Amino acid sequence: MIDPQVKQRLVEIVGENWVLDQPEELVAYSYDSTPMYQELPDIVVLPKTTEEVAKVMRIAYEYGIPVIPRGSATNLSGGTVPLKGGLVLALNRMNQILEIDEENLTATVQPGVITQELHQTVEAKGLFYPPDPGSLRISTIGGNIAENAGGLRGLKYGVTKDYVIALEAVLPNGDILHTGGKLAKDVAGYDLTKLLIGSEGTLAVITKATLKLLPLPETKRTMLAIFKDLTDAARAVSKIIANKIIPVTLEFMDNGTINVVEDYVKIGLPRDVEAILLMEQDGSKDQVDRDIEKMAEICRQEQAVSVQVASTAKEAEQLMTARRMALSALARLKPTTILEDATVPRSELAPMVETIKNVAKKYNLMICTFGHAGDGNLHPTCLTDVRNADEIKRVEKAFDEIYEKTIELGGTITGEHGVGIAKAGYLEWKVGKSGIEVMKGIKKAFDPKGILNPGKLFTDQPRKRVVIQS
Amino acid sequence: MIDPQVKQRLVEIVGENWVLDQPEELVAYSYDSTPMYQELPDIVVLPKTTEEVAKVMRIAYEYGIPVIPRGSATNLSGGTVPLKGGLVLALNRMNQILEIDEENLTATVQPGVITQELHQTVEAKGLFYPPDPGSLRISTIGGNIAENAGGLRGLKYGVTKDYVIALEAVLPNGDILHTGGKLAKDVAGYDLTKLLIGSEGTLAVITKATLKLLPLPETKRTMLAIFKDLTDAARAVSKIIANKIIPVTLEFMDNGTINVVEDYVKIGLPRDVEAILLMEQDGSKDQVDRDIEKMAEICRQEQAVSVQVASTAKEAEQLMTARRMALSALARLKPTTILEDATVPRSELAPMVETIKNVAKKYNLMICTFGHAGDGNLHPTCLTDVRNADEIKRVEKAFDEIYEKTIELGGTITGEHGVGIAKAGYLEWKVGKSGIEVMKGIKKAFDPKGILNPGKLFTDQPRKRVVIQS
Repeated sequence: MIDPQVKQRLVEIVGENWVLDQPEELVAYSYDSTPMYQELPDIVVLPKTTEEVAKVMRIAYEYGIPVIPRGSATNLSGGTVPLKGGLVLALNRMNQILEIDEENLTATVQPGVITQELHQTVEAKGLFYPPDPGSLRISTIGGNIAENAGGLRGLKYGVTKDYVIALEAVLPNGDILHTGGKLAKDVAGYDLTKLLIGSEGTLAVITKATLKLLPLPETKRTMLAIFKDLTDAARAVSKIIANKIIPVTLEFMDNGTINVVEDYVKIGLPRDVEAILLMEQDGSKDQVDRDIEKMAEICRQEQAVSVQVASTAKEAEQLMTARRMALSALARLKPTTILEDATVPRSELAPMVETIKNVAKKYNLMICTFGHAGDGNLHPTCLTDVRNADEIKRVEKAFDEIYEKTIELGGTITGEHGVGIAKAGYLEWKVGKSGIEVMKGIKKAFDPKGILNPGKLFTDQPRKRVVIQS
Repeated sequence: MIDPQVKQRLVEIVGENWVLDQPEELVAYSYDSTPMYQELPDIVVLPKTTEEVAKVMRIAYEYGIPVIPRGSATNLSGGTVPLKGGLVLALNRMNQILEIDEENLTATVQPGVITQELHQTVEAKGLFYPPDPGSLRISTIGGNIAENAGGLRGLKYGVTKDYVIALEAVLPNGDILHTGGKLAKDVAGYDLTKLLIGSEGTLAVITKATLKLLPLPETKRTMLAIFKDLTDAARAVSKIIANKIIPVTLEFMDNGTINVVEDYVKIGLPRDVEAILLMEQDGSKDQVDRDIEKMAEICRQEQAVSVQVASTAKEAEQLMTARRMALSALARLKPTTILEDATVPRSELAPMVETIKNVAKKYNLMICTFGHAGDGNLHPTCLTDVRNADEIKRVEKAFDEIYEKTIELGGTITGEHGVGIAKAGYLEWKVGKSGIEVMKGIKKAFDPKGILNPGKLFTDQPRKRVVIQS
C-alpha cells in the first residue's frame, strides 16, 4: 500500500490521470513476457517528461520506495516484474522521436518509442537502425536499451549496445545524468553509456537516447538450406565464416521446431531433417549476389539436401515464414512456453544442440531449439505446463544442466534476454564471485538505497553447479 | 623509497632481473608521451604471467602501494606517469599472441603485444583488426585497451572498444576477473568488458584480451582533395555522409599544418589553401570504385581546387604522405608539441576549426589542426616551449577556451587520448557533477584503497568554466 500523502505528491507531478492504483489497473503491470513470475505493484506512474521522472525519483528516494522502470514489458527474464511491489514507472507516454540528424547519422528518441516505428521512420529517409529484437512490433527503445536487445541481424550488425551513443538518465536520487554525445569517439571518463545499456533498470531510468544510424543497405537476399545432419549444418555455418562472409542473418531450426512449424503452417518442410539454416545477406547488389552464391555452394558441399535462393521479395518472405512462425508455432502446443537463451561460441553450435537434445530426453521434456546460429545464440524452448509441479522441477534440472554445459563450452547464461529474476541464480556461474562483488559495488555507486528494480540480477540463492568448471 | 622487505617479496615473485629500482632505471619509467608531466616511481616490476601480476597486486594491496600499469607509454594524457610514485607494473614481457581462432574470428592476446604485430599476424590470415592508433608501431594492445585507442579507420570501423569481447584482469586486491567471451552476444550482468576499456588503468590490470576480427576487405583506394575554403571542405564531409557513404578514412589538415608539412617534405602542396581532405574507402572492388567516384564528384561540386585519385598503391602511399608526416613535421618546429584532442559532432567541424584559429590568434600562439574529419575528432597541435612560462600560461588559457567551445558544440574533451592527468580538470565540463560522483563510486567498487593509477581521471582542482553552458 502506498502512503496517501505520497500518492498525492505523485498526482501533483504527473496529473491524476497518470497515477494508477486500482487493483484491476495494478494487475496489468504485475507481469511481463516471462512465464511464472508475477507480483502486484503498489502504484503505477506514467510520466511525460524527464523533469517529471526526476521529481518522481526524488520522492521514491525520500521514502525508499522500489521503482520499476518499464516499457512494453516484452522482456523474457522477469526484468519488469515488480518483485518487491513499489512503483512501476511506465515510460510509454514518453514516445517521441525527437530528431533524425541526417548529417551526423543519429536519431534522438524518448524511451517509449516503439522499435518498429523507429525502423520505419529512419528507413523512409534511407537510413538504418539494425537492432531488431523479435518483439520489435511492440517493444520500446528504452526497453531495448535496458535489456541490450539483440535480434536477427546481430551477426553482422551487433546489438543495441553498438548503436547507443548518448543517454539522458535519471539517477535514483533524482539527479539527471548525461552521457556520451553525437560523437564517433569519446573517452571522457568511464563509459557510463555502455554501462547503462543492459543494466536492466537497476542503475538509472533512461529518459532519452541518441542512436547511431547507418546508411540503409542497397539490397538484401534470402536463402534457405536444409540438412539431414546437424553437424553438416554446423560445419556449413563455420565454413561460411571461415570464407570471410559475414551474413546479416544466419538462423537455425532443429528437427523439433521444424515439425512443430510444419504442423502449424504446412509449407512443405521435410520432417526427417535435423536442421534448417536460413540466411540473408545485405549490401551492394554484386557483393550480395557473390556472397549468396558462395553460401549456397558451401551448403551444397556440406551435404544440404535442399538449397533455395529467393529471387523475389515474395519468395524471400516465404522462406522467412518458417523462422518467423517458430515461436508462435511452439507456443500453441502447451500452456507454458519457456523460451531460453543459451549462447556459445559459434564453433560450439553442434555440441550445444546435441546437449540440449540429450538433456530433454533424459528429463522427458519437450525442448525445441531455434536461434541465431551465426551468433551461437540458441533459444532452447521448453513446452510445458506450470500447473504440473513435477514437470516444472524437471524443467529446472534440465536447464541447470544446459547452462552448465553452456559455461563449459565458453558460453554465457544469456545472450540477449537478460538476467532479471530468471537468470539471477546462474549469474555467478558466468561472472564468478569477483564479478558479482564488482557488479554489486557498481550497483551501490548508482543506487545506494537499492530502490531501482530491486531483486533483479543478484540473488541470495545462487544455483549450485552440478559439475566444477575445468 | 620502497620497503626492502617488499622489494624482496617482489623479487621472489618475478625474479631479480625483473625488479628495477636504480635511479637510471626509474627515470625511464617516469614519463610517457605527454609533455610537461614527469615523476619517478619507487620501483618497476616486469611480470611474465597473470599469476605474477596477481601476486604483485596482493602485495601492493597489503601495503597500500600505488600501482601504475604500463605498456609502451605512448599515451598523450599523462596516463602512465607515476604521479604519486609507487610501483610501475610494466607488462611488456607479457607479449604473446596466444591464439588466432579462424572459426570464431577472434584473436586472444597478452597485453604487451605490439599493435602492428597483431595487424600483421591477422592480415597474413586474411583477417582484419581495424583499430590503428597513430602509435601502432610501438603501442601495446593492453595500452590501446586501457586508453580505448582510436585511429584513422574509426569513422567506418569504430575504436578499440568495438573489438574487445573478453578480458582477463587482475583487481587491486589480486583477484582475477574474467569478463565476456568469444561471444557475439552476452548480457550476463553489467558490461565489465566495456567498462574496463578506456578506464586508463584505474580499475584493474588487463592481463589477457580476446579481440573480434573481421574479414580483411578485398580492396582499398585513396584520394586527396584540396579546398581553398574551409567551409567548402566541411560541406564536402557532410555531403559525403549524407550521400550514405561511410569512408574508412576521412582526414583533414588545415592551412598551418599544410605549410609545415610542405616545408618539411616538399611534395608540392599549395600553400594558400585552407583544407586538405584525405579519403580512403575499402570493401569490394566495385563498391569502392563507386564510392571513390562519388566522393570525388562531391568534392568537385564543393569547389575543391584539386581532386587526385590514386590509381596504384604507390600513388596512394604518396597521397598519404602529407597526413602521415603531419605530426613529425609539426614536432620539429619547436621544443614542445602539445597534441590535443577536441572532438565535436561531425557537422560542427567548420565552426570548431574556426574557433581554434581565432583562439590561437587571440593568444598569439602557433596552433595547427589536423585530424579525423569524419569523426569530428580534431587534433589542434600547439607548438611551444615549456621553458617559456608566459607562453605556457597563454597555451592553458587558449585550451580552456577551445574546450569551452567543444562542449558548447556538443563535443567532448577527449576523443581518443584519454583524461589521465592532462584532462582531469576538464572532466566535469563533459560529464557533470553527477557523472563525476557516479564514476568515483565505480572507482571505489573496484579499488577501495585507491592504489591503481592514483591521481588520474579525477582531480581536486577542476577548471573553472569561462562561460556557463547553455
